[in-house]
Amino acid sequence: MTIDDLTAPRTDHLALPEDLADLLFREARTVSQFTDEDVTDEQLAAVYDLVKWGPTAINTVPLRLLVVRGRDARERLAAHMSEGNRQRVLEAPVSIVLAADPGFHRHLPVLAPHMAGMAESLEPAAEQRAQMARTNALLQVGYLIVGLRAAGLAAGPMGGMDAAAIDAEFFADNGWQSLLVVNVGYAEGAGTSYPRAPRLSYSQASLTV
Amino acid sequence: MTIDDLTAPRTDHLALPEDLADLLFREARTVSQFTDEDVTDEQLAAVYDLVKWGPTAINTVPLRLLVVRGRDARERLAAHMSEGNRQRVLEAPVSIVLAADPGFHRHLPVLAPHMAGMAESLEPAAEQRAQMARTNALLQVGYLIVGLRAAGLAAGPMGGMDAAAIDAEFFADNGWQSLLVVNVGYAEGAGTSYPRAPRLSYSQASLTV
Repeated sequence: MTIDDLTAPRTDHLALPEDLADLLFREARTVSQFTDEDVTDEQLAAVYDLVKWGPTAINTVPLRLLVVRGRDARERLAAHMSEGNRQRVLEAPVSIVLAADPGFHRHLPVLAPHMAGMAESLEPAAEQRAQMARTNALLQVGYLIVGLRAAGLAAGPMGGMDAAAIDAEFFADNGWQSLLVVNVGYAEGAGTSYPRAPRLSYSQASLTV
Repeated sequence: MTIDDLTAPRTDHLALPEDLADLLFREARTVSQFTDEDVTDEQLAAVYDLVKWGPTAINTVPLRLLVVRGRDARERLAAHMSEGNRQRVLEAPVSIVLAADPGFHRHLPVLAPHMAGMAESLEPAAEQRAQMARTNALLQVGYLIVGLRAAGLAAGPMGGMDAAAIDAEFFADNGWQSLLVVNVGYAEGAGTSYPRAPRLSYSQASLTV
């Protein structure tokens, strides 16, 4: 098996300057070691206001954010993370529970006025709504991770958690369904002690017909 | 309900210049009207080589791309798209079936050498692998859409299709599971005749605890 190495030649096919390609993708790492510097609500809102424009099916935009700042809230969240992630939640400048909202359809009359009647027809279809919400919110998580980096922030996404317990702890009233948790802040040094892992090459990951 | 409008004030919290924030998110649209200009394999490989660095759980990177170019292949794909998307597949410079590979675990000894034994323990867990593949490939679809725009390309993602039929048509041998189809090219004018739809504001989409 051939794997691209980290020194693979860069290309001139991008409209993005090299330094921004590095910032958003090439040099960005999953960070677990942060400085003490705070992340403000204004910064998070700016990131959201950038990435909210990313496309979703029927403009459902079902991603929701639970911003966990308070000491008590951090401890409630940490209790439902897998063991290796608990201390990370307690120590990160801010943690965000990224969730999908199966109640997205209530916003469709405003978000997708060209799909008249969609909100009503989806109302009884709870399972279909949950699936649509999850699929499209995951696309938005991809946009959001890029957006955090575009704001100069480091992101540490973590899937190791008891999602059902987090939903019961925080989302009993609004029905949001947690997807993953991302720690956000400024990287301390490289922000991680793991070496950069390789990726599959284009020829390994694609076929042409 | 209050919805952000398109003239909401821009912020100074981004490390990204305004023109690139526009290119990647703010001005980018879901495009269905393309020029005749070709999209080369080199361009698609450059996009992949940028976004392959985006994070996935355990570095599973399960997204796979079926690049549909040939006339016959286009017709086979179009037959399984919903009616409104058929002509789009036939006319786009190139269409890509974005798929998740439940067989991602076979690459883990190289991709995640720190998780020794993971490949073996996942081998019998087909359903868990399919779920992991889908979740993480959807994050990667988010990165890919941003990456196509970063290469100056326009993307037209489409979920309206018979995914099971596409899998039977193209993926009977490799077991990939299709997520959505994206048309790729250069936008003809605005690339769409739909007006820009609104989004939820940060205060609508988030809570702080």
